[in-house]
Amino acid sequence: MATKKSKGSKSKGSKSKSKSKPTSEEQAAKVKDAKAQAAEAEAQRAKNPADPTAGTPALPATAWVADPTPRLRVGAGFRLSDTDTRATPGYEGRKSDGERDLASAAAEVDSLQEKLFANSLFEGPDQHRSILLVLQGMDSSGKGGIVRHVVGSVDPGGVTHASFKKPTDEELSHDFLWRIRKRLPADGQIGVFDRSHYEDVLAGRVLNLASPEEIDGRYGVINDFERELTEQGTTVVKVFLNISPDEQKARLGARLERPDKQWKYNPNDIDSRLLWNQYQDAYQVVFDRTSTEAAPWHVVPADHKWYARLAVQRLVLDALQHLHQSWPPADYDIEVEKARLAAS
Amino acid sequence: MATKKSKGSKSKGSKSKSKSKPTSEEQAAKVKDAKAQAAEAEAQRAKNPADPTAGTPALPATAWVADPTPRLRVGAGFRLSDTDTRATPGYEGRKSDGERDLASAAAEVDSLQEKLFANSLFEGPDQHRSILLVLQGMDSSGKGGIVRHVVGSVDPGGVTHASFKKPTDEELSHDFLWRIRKRLPADGQIGVFDRSHYEDVLAGRVLNLASPEEIDGRYGVINDFERELTEQGTTVVKVFLNISPDEQKARLGARLERPDKQWKYNPNDIDSRLLWNQYQDAYQVVFDRTSTEAAPWHVVPADHKWYARLAVQRLVLDALQHLHQSWPPADYDIEVEKARLAAS
Repeated sequence: MATKKSKGSKSKGSKSKSKSKPTSEEQAAKVKDAKAQAAEAEAQRAKNPADPTAGTPALPATAWVADPTPRLRVGAGFRLSDTDTRATPGYEGRKSDGERDLASAAAEVDSLQEKLFANSLFEGPDQHRSILLVLQGMDSSGKGGIVRHVVGSVDPGGVTHASFKKPTDEELSHDFLWRIRKRLPADGQIGVFDRSHYEDVLAGRVLNLASPEEIDGRYGVINDFERELTEQGTTVVKVFLNISPDEQKARLGARLERPDKQWKYNPNDIDSRLLWNQYQDAYQVVFDRTSTEAAPWHVVPADHKWYARLAVQRLVLDALQHLHQSWPPADYDIEVEKARLAAS
Repeated sequence: MATKKSKGSKSKGSKSKSKSKPTSEEQAAKVKDAKAQAAEAEAQRAKNPADPTAGTPALPATAWVADPTPRLRVGAGFRLSDTDTRATPGYEGRKSDGERDLASAAAEVDSLQEKLFANSLFEGPDQHRSILLVLQGMDSSGKGGIVRHVVGSVDPGGVTHASFKKPTDEELSHDFLWRIRKRLPADGQIGVFDRSHYEDVLAGRVLNLASPEEIDGRYGVINDFERELTEQGTTVVKVFLNISPDEQKARLGARLERPDKQWKYNPNDIDSRLLWNQYQDAYQVVFDRTSTEAAPWHVVPADHKWYARLAVQRLVLDALQHLHQSWPPADYDIEVEKARLAAS
């Protein structure tokens, strides 16, 4: 039933040099390598469409030593209290390596999102695909930094960003998913939720914003909602940025010191901080009850901002790569159009 | 009446190195210089708040030789047919210079947008400010490239992107500004319209989508609408990307050649191309009737993509600089909060 949408507006120049964010010539060269590899892999996939994994490029040299995705995923028996907020699962590099590797992979995230968008314009099995990145974490855990430094490498036309704060009166007069559904990404988009429907079982639970029975019912509603999303083509990537109380103290303190950072501080941050253990408990319940096969949670150690960004970039990249998309074939006769253009 | 909103979610790391998009060490150094200068200017402004222009930084060395804004602005007697689509008003550099200067200024755009956002969170004269960049132009004129390469340097959480295509049935059942108003940027945001309400007097006029009387009435409605926006704190930056028919032919031809670009081509592009002169006439009427003092048009020569990006970046930067914003003062007692944090 779906027909090709009116033409996409994302026109991208043939120069891709300034797409990525290298900080040195070395990094620029790396990005170029990565792009060349991606193009090569693409060419191989095009030759052999039956095997979508054919030609998956060897990763460029990085300090990754293991796939972080299974290491970060919340499985049975997971205990938040056992985690190390300073760890760097799967990565054996330092901050400078991490910044380099983040820059190197930016072009691939961007390129795969462009392909996601392109496919959304054409009828076919890849038309109704999107990514939803759900970011949760205590104040100053680095959610905004993920948006800037990871999602920022993608074309702004391909990103749907939504930040969920205290609900308005109108929002409260609807069920808790009402405002969430309105901000879901369209086909072809990477959606980013800076806080989300999980606040309704986090702040909701800790601050007693609804009855225990009502909150208890929400976990199942959330699982149904997320299953619905995945069944309809949205890959849901759920991330908890895991910082320690000491790290938060340092970050909030830094905000209070600098005139250009004081706007980021809010006295409520301390109120929430004083409820640290209650929030940790509420997160544990979230992980126990909503880390599903359809939409698992990932707990990312976040005391090192550089690692958290790198790890979330890998999670997003993984989600995009698992779609195994090719460029959509033209749905017009190329030779006819060339002739029309020539005659025009 | 306005009170401080709940805390902003845009948390930004103290490391700004990867914010900009330099392509070499030289460019990275330039960006650093620009940021240092911006900080210095900021400090001077903070010392002397009565004169908001005090401390405006000397521009870093660039190939700009004159302010492009007045040169691009549509004034009385403007004739689109007299323009040169290959010109580079105000700029005496080449493509490589342009790419360097674009990268150098990216950090300042980003930093000023962050300040715009910060102010939107605090009660005060700068609370209700936003920028709306309206992009118009024929197919392949480079609107998407502006979004990617100019707007892409800003935090995704600070950008509201809207692309307007053929109206839906629901949209058609409302007045033509209905769908536009829904996508206006919030306070603190840079909004980008990839096509806009102007399609209702462009395609609307050329394709006879409404009666001549109705279309005739829309120009005044648009002027009222944009005056309303500016009076309420939105700076409206209207840009026409001006390409030649030959340049369009080359760009559409390139899209038809490459499997990774064919998705950007739409047979309708040729239909519009065949109406080139009618569209130029419709744009002339737009410039005659809607280049107002409140919201003037800028016609940007766009056969050189690098120049168009550089020029639009300058227009956006101009709009941000003219707000003369400082970081908002804390609306809490800093010493009290330091003590609360220390005790927590």
